[in-house]
Amino acid sequence: MGSDSDLPVVEKAIQTLADFGVPTEVHVCSAHRTPDKASQFARNAVKEGFGVIIAAAGLAAHLAGALAANTTLPVIGIPMAGGVGDGLDALLSTVMMPPGVPVATVGVGGAVNAALLAVQILAVSDQGMADKLADYKRSAAEKVMKKDLAIQEKYNLMKI
Amino acid sequence: MGSDSDLPVVEKAIQTLADFGVPTEVHVCSAHRTPDKASQFARNAVKEGFGVIIAAAGLAAHLAGALAANTTLPVIGIPMAGGVGDGLDALLSTVMMPPGVPVATVGVGGAVNAALLAVQILAVSDQGMADKLADYKRSAAEKVMKKDLAIQEKYNLMKI
Amino acid sequence: MGSDSDLPVVEKAIQTLADFGVPTEVHVCSAHRTPDKASQFARNAVKEGFGVIIAAAGLAAHLAGALAANTTLPVIGIPMAGGVGDGLDALLSTVMMPPGVPVATVGVGGAVNAALLAVQILAVSDQGMADKLADYKRSAAEKVMKKDLAIQEKYNLMKI
Amino acid sequence: MGSDSDLPVVEKAIQTLADFGVPTEVHVCSAHRTPDKASQFARNAVKEGFGVIIAAAGLAAHLAGALAANTTLPVIGIPMAGGVGDGLDALLSTVMMPPGVPVATVGVGGAVNAALLAVQILAVSDQGMADKLADYKRSAAEKVMKKDLAIQEKYNLMKI
Amino acid sequence: MGSDSDLPVVEKAIQTLADFGVPTEVHVCSAHRTPDKASQFARNAVKEGFGVIIAAAGLAAHLAGALAANTTLPVIGIPMAGGVGDGLDALLSTVMMPPGVPVATVGVGGAVNAALLAVQILAVSDQGMADKLADYKRSAAEKVMKKDLAIQEKYNLMKI
Amino acid sequence: MGSDSDLPVVEKAIQTLADFGVPTEVHVCSAHRTPDKASQFARNAVKEGFGVIIAAAGLAAHLAGALAANTTLPVIGIPMAGGVGDGLDALLSTVMMPPGVPVATVGVGGAVNAALLAVQILAVSDQGMADKLADYKRSAAEKVMKKDLAIQEKYNLMKI
Amino acid sequence: MGSDSDLPVVEKAIQTLADFGVPTEVHVCSAHRTPDKASQFARNAVKEGFGVIIAAAGLAAHLAGALAANTTLPVIGIPMAGGVGDGLDALLSTVMMPPGVPVATVGVGGAVNAALLAVQILAVSDQGMADKLADYKRSAAEKVMKKDLAIQEKYNLMKI
Amino acid sequence: MGSDSDLPVVEKAIQTLADFGVPTEVHVCSAHRTPDKASQFARNAVKEGFGVIIAAAGLAAHLAGALAANTTLPVIGIPMAGGVGDGLDALLSTVMMPPGVPVATVGVGGAVNAALLAVQILAVSDQGMADKLADYKRSAAEKVMKKDLAIQEKYNLMKI
Repeated sequence: MGSDSDLPVVEKAIQTLADFGVPTEVHVCSAHRTPDKASQFARNAVKEGFGVIIAAAGLAAHLAGALAANTTLPVIGIPMAGGVGDGLDALLSTVMMPPGVPVATVGVGGAVNAALLAVQILAVSDQGMADKLADYKRSAAEKVMKKDLAIQEKYNLMKI
Repeated sequence: MGSDSDLPVVEKAIQTLADFGVPTEVHVCSAHRTPDKASQFARNAVKEGFGVIIAAAGLAAHLAGALAANTTLPVIGIPMAGGVGDGLDALLSTVMMPPGVPVATVGVGGAVNAALLAVQILAVSDQGMADKLADYKRSAAEKVMKKDLAIQEKYNLMKI
Repeated sequence: MGSDSDLPVVEKAIQTLADFGVPTEVHVCSAHRTPDKASQFARNAVKEGFGVIIAAAGLAAHLAGALAANTTLPVIGIPMAGGVGDGLDALLSTVMMPPGVPVATVGVGGAVNAALLAVQILAVSDQGMADKLADYKRSAAEKVMKKDLAIQEKYNLMKI
Repeated sequence: MGSDSDLPVVEKAIQTLADFGVPTEVHVCSAHRTPDKASQFARNAVKEGFGVIIAAAGLAAHLAGALAANTTLPVIGIPMAGGVGDGLDALLSTVMMPPGVPVATVGVGGAVNAALLAVQILAVSDQGMADKLADYKRSAAEKVMKKDLAIQEKYNLMKI
Repeated sequence: MGSDSDLPVVEKAIQTLADFGVPTEVHVCSAHRTPDKASQFARNAVKEGFGVIIAAAGLAAHLAGALAANTTLPVIGIPMAGGVGDGLDALLSTVMMPPGVPVATVGVGGAVNAALLAVQILAVSDQGMADKLADYKRSAAEKVMKKDLAIQEKYNLMKI
Repeated sequence: MGSDSDLPVVEKAIQTLADFGVPTEVHVCSAHRTPDKASQFARNAVKEGFGVIIAAAGLAAHLAGALAANTTLPVIGIPMAGGVGDGLDALLSTVMMPPGVPVATVGVGGAVNAALLAVQILAVSDQGMADKLADYKRSAAEKVMKKDLAIQEKYNLMKI
Repeated sequence: MGSDSDLPVVEKAIQTLADFGVPTEVHVCSAHRTPDKASQFARNAVKEGFGVIIAAAGLAAHLAGALAANTTLPVIGIPMAGGVGDGLDALLSTVMMPPGVPVATVGVGGAVNAALLAVQILAVSDQGMADKLADYKRSAAEKVMKKDLAIQEKYNLMKI
Repeated sequence: MGSDSDLPVVEKAIQTLADFGVPTEVHVCSAHRTPDKASQFARNAVKEGFGVIIAAAGLAAHLAGALAANTTLPVIGIPMAGGVGDGLDALLSTVMMPPGVPVATVGVGGAVNAALLAVQILAVSDQGMADKLADYKRSAAEKVMKKDLAIQEKYNLMKI
């Protein structure tokens, strides 16, 4: 994450990755204040055994792009709200990358989805992870269906 | 892709994937006009041996999300220009997914980046692909440096 | 509705439909977390005797479009605020449908209007409903005129 | 339509309605230049036997709202591009109606969808129209599938 | 004003007009809920002796345009915040009028400016009013200069 | 106008004012390149006998505001397209004036409306001008109605 | 600053300049309410020994541009939030200057950056200032790295 | 510049700097494709004798920020059009920098202004340059005044 003020959002990604049993390293690392550390981290990431990098940043959110510039690993970008248009600035700064250097961007503040996308990427070659994802999906569907039943109980007696 | 009118953009993704030797299947498939086919395709994608799905769509671009709803594979979304704000509609429709169902979104019309992101995802567990990506990155840097030399020749004689 | 967190807004639609005596069924149903249930609901809606479907969703709001893809009934979409630009994301995701699959979109958070539009649609072939609408319109006008009188009493003594 | 310059877009709605055999009246009528005619048209629309009104306008697009203010019929609004943000001005002017007076808004320039929505509304109480809509939907799906086959023939030989 | 919920903002216009001694009439009048009253008011405004009309409305803010359609008097529009983009919807709905029917639009929530603009318009043929405006301008400048002195006292001791 | 490149749009205002017989002076005058001339012009405008000032400018369109800062006359601003968002930059720069210094803003490129608004302002104390405006309004309505008849002849034979 | 209500933001610039030992003068000065004072201040700024001007303003933020029009000194603009789109109006009004009159614009509310930019400009010919900037940069990097260590202690025990 | 496709715009900056006799070096250098070269260039810029850096980039325009992260020199950013919203993406990516690392941003495509701003910065400690700027400003004003005379000759004979 670009700043430790992003932690309340990023924590949801950390928790989701932990729920899937994905070993994770968490860093504060700024594309603008510690650019060397950021590029060095990205350049060593393959060697260090990372599979995916997730970067959360707001405003002119360059962190994901700066990391992607220095690695061949998939880099997932989480645009953070806080600037112009509820995070529109961070979204455009993260997603509109030039040809050659993609950033896999999720929605503004989308920490859970960033973690899930990382798990999906790792699951491409990890059947156990893929099975956990299928379970997660089923469980998410069941939660919606339970809510549906609760809502139906409350309202649908008025149906003719 | 959601419509064959997207082909001129999508072709750049097809070509990039071919350059990396990634076996690819190309479909026209609409979240709105052939919703069953879209969800069936996504549900069978793991079984059929796909590793990543790329979806290109414009306007209220639901294709990537509709596929992601039906698979645990990573789904990459390419928002296409053409509606409001040079593709802002498709970008928001693709990227702002609710927690639980991520779409790895690239920039508006970002077909080359979508293909590269797919290659990066496959390369997580494929060292040969990772090596090709490293070559690609080097070659892209060299192209920029050649252009830099050409520009310097043209302009920098005026330097003191 | 895509999530039960939409209920405080959607309740205004439920109440308005009740005021007009329209039998109503309320569901939580997600285009992304329960896609099968959503498409199945839409495919059976004519057979089940529904006349109109109202779908409320936020962010990359695909619910209305996903239902419209699977039915010939009119589908009314309520974009919910909460993401980028006070609901601009949900508005564009709901309204910018490709040719062939319309969604009758109301304003951001426009639950009352969604219900009234449903009533207007049913009233096309139901004179009793049409009469109730005319009453509603008259009553709304009268409320405005009462407010006008109150305001005039407060301010217009200063008129020369 | 608010101006005869809207005709090239509106003609697609006229043609679609004709394809479905819906008797149609076409008018140029401005909320700002002929306000009396607009409100009178709307007030008489039920009596004249209209079932649905479609209004196309650009810029500060008030036509749909001005008609909806004067009738209990469903009014469908087509925002036209041409002003700020590729039609964002007309979209917001059409869709963001206050509670009490809905406009069923389709996408910017969405004339085909406006016509289909009108047909869907009429089909609520007209089984023949509903059957035609089901045919239309099937035929649209088939067209997409044909395009898919053509694309597959062209590209999928490279699949392993 | 389109709704009495606009009163806290509109009151600043009423007060400003009172400060300039401009006789004023205040109404709640909706382009959508009381369209006849709105157009009738505008049609009679010249005859009733009005010189300028100020209209405040939010969302798809049609009130100013609906009045302007029915009078040759200058109509000033105040877009009200509350919908999409902090009042961007109301701003575009008010200002983007088609050729032939201008609305003199002030900023979002710009009630004081609407009143001052009305005074400026009346002052074109009223020297007394013009003198008051000149006084107001001088007094506003003096207030800024007093604030400048206060700020300078606080901070400029650090100047070398 | 801020630049003579604005002339093709501004000419429509000049022509409209000429049609109404309003004596007019046309200037190129930049808030940024000739700021003294701009403020001097505005300061002398009352004395020189002007009744209304119209200012057209694009980008960070300050001309109208700079003139309004230096006169008590009504200043009409025409935002010109050309920068970000089809003139959204010029619109916001022109209309969002702080309390105390209004600019009567018309739509992007709205030169005809700027002229008509100027005529409306002058007509507040000039019955002859008011009569011309009423004629103009009638004639504009008649043009719409003629177009309506032409459209009806073309299309409405298909009405049942 | 255009208004003393901008002080809570501007104070961060004042403090940052003080930290660097830059002699500073602070003024409230409005492009619209005290235009003469603003242009006079700018015209005399070189003579008075100023090196850089920083201007903070919101809404149709003309202050920076109005000063830049009257001086050859670099003018730094701070767009202030408060109007449409979280300061988008002030950003566009400040940054979109026509060729010939640049404003060095920082982000919305970017008072610290405005001060740092001023220091950078002065440091071009002041080695002592340049050294302080290098220290500041190092210290900012160290703060990020300390936060990184704290975060790592908290989270990275879960790393395998 | 981030890509040699930016040259047609950047050339205006090169020409303007040449007109002022500023020794200039021109490079193609990408924050994403040649990140090392970019950061190395910035880190050495003071030592190499540069006074100001100008960076032009489009889309998720990180070049200016990436350079600013690695130098204490003032960095001027030119956002290039081409992506979403006529350059809105590049503008927000360039200007919305976090506290500590300013980028002096000019308008979209504002190459002439970037050069002038660089000259203004150098002129802070270079009286000769300051004199040239004053000449430039006078000459720009004279050009506007000549255009004004031409326009007056054409139009103002109609003045009474």
